[in-house]
Amino acid sequence: MSEGDEIRIIGIAGIPEVAPGVDLPTVIGDAIVASGAGLELGDIVVVTHKIVSKAEGRIVDLGTIEPSILAQGFAARWDKDPRKIEVVLREAHRIVRMHKGLIIAETAHGFVCANAGVDASNASPDSVVLLPANPDSSAAALRDALAQRFGLSGRDIPAVIVSDSFGRPWRDGIVNVAIGVSGIAPLIDYRGHADAAGYELSASVLAVADEVASAAELVMHKLAGRPVAIVRGYRAPLAATPGTGRDLIMGEERDLFR
Amino acid sequence: MSEGDEIRIIGIAGIPEVAPGVDLPTVIGDAIVASGAGLELGDIVVVTHKIVSKAEGRIVDLGTIEPSILAQGFAARWDKDPRKIEVVLREAHRIVRMHKGLIIAETAHGFVCANAGVDASNASPDSVVLLPANPDSSAAALRDALAQRFGLSGRDIPAVIVSDSFGRPWRDGIVNVAIGVSGIAPLIDYRGHADAAGYELSASVLAVADEVASAAELVMHKLAGRPVAIVRGYRAPLAATPGTGRDLIMGEERDLFR
Repeated sequence: MSEGDEIRIIGIAGIPEVAPGVDLPTVIGDAIVASGAGLELGDIVVVTHKIVSKAEGRIVDLGTIEPSILAQGFAARWDKDPRKIEVVLREAHRIVRMHKGLIIAETAHGFVCANAGVDASNASPDSVVLLPANPDSSAAALRDALAQRFGLSGRDIPAVIVSDSFGRPWRDGIVNVAIGVSGIAPLIDYRGHADAAGYELSASVLAVADEVASAAELVMHKLAGRPVAIVRGYRAPLAATPGTGRDLIMGEERDLFR
Repeated sequence: MSEGDEIRIIGIAGIPEVAPGVDLPTVIGDAIVASGAGLELGDIVVVTHKIVSKAEGRIVDLGTIEPSILAQGFAARWDKDPRKIEVVLREAHRIVRMHKGLIIAETAHGFVCANAGVDASNASPDSVVLLPANPDSSAAALRDALAQRFGLSGRDIPAVIVSDSFGRPWRDGIVNVAIGVSGIAPLIDYRGHADAAGYELSASVLAVADEVASAAELVMHKLAGRPVAIVRGYRAPLAATPGTGRDLIMGEERDLFR
């Protein structure tokens, strides 16, 4: 097969429960070595945000939370924990929808997602996990640390994606997307290129970092306890100018649903 | 590595330009054989809808289209081809947004997407390609034909996904999703299962067919001229009850954005 014909998605097992202050790059580096996968040119390391958030201490003890009137009322109406609702409201920059027990909110980062990205913790029922403060910085820091750990430089350094699972209007179920990106182009613009038949392609800006994150979820999935995956053999985004997860947030001027 | 640790995404090259009436299962079967990939237990064959639509004759000659007043006005305002706008309006069951030169519409199938799924044709600038009339039926028919071609029965028959690229509110770029599904569960419901730490997972229904479609796009991408990919080694959705692409459309009663 010619280059680019095949991509491998490799689940990295053996990552223990992550607590605040854990040296995440070391834990991930160890697991990559132990799995035998190693790192190769063009690898994209996808890490679920939950272990990034936990390592960064982005955990809220619900015992410390005093719910507002709004949180109390919404929680009572929809049979929710008012302390969790309060944390969601505090993480929200803007409420997009608040109905049927669900809160869709824009976060400080600009992501529009359920519960402003606040997740139940799998470590304790009395705490919740927030999104990383800056997922792009988290991705870049992890990338730097992996470069050092594996002695890599330049184009040999793997790209890193920090992922979360977001719902979508109109479609059921959640899918993994890229909230932090370092070392690859998150979008590839095929406009102006001719396709195989010679006609110019139109309206084809692909959110490839989101597609890579979704691909990774297939081996990372919830029950498997594999919060890290390597996507190997995907060259296209490496040939374009690297960007960040922020580039995947649609600008207000183009967004018909803001 | 243990089962489920690794998934391969294999691009299938060598599929010629598809014209109406082409025997698509034969073309795809031939390409799968010629590529050396073959078919294995658990394979998911992902096919971009464009070749399905073309084989089914879902092509509109713009020369036959008389634009309505609405199409003429919108096209003039945003510098678009009024005949293309007219086709979009005819494919729409409901207009969700119509602004800034973009039309987001609900199709007869229930999909909410740009231009009601009407695509520019790469075969001719004077024609456009519609979505398949029933992508689930298209997927099921292709699956049956592949079973016959390769002499497979029961669980050895590959699953088939017919894909399209959809935009998303709030996020830039388009991603591949599953519009037709046969032979796998499009959604996996992890609710009620305990995760690795023993806590019950919440709100975790994964749209795995969409994630598989996105994974496939990484090798099918626009310039590569590879409209078919095989996703190999993903077992999870095969263990659940098979469903259709229609299952991925959010019910009106749950949709906060309808």
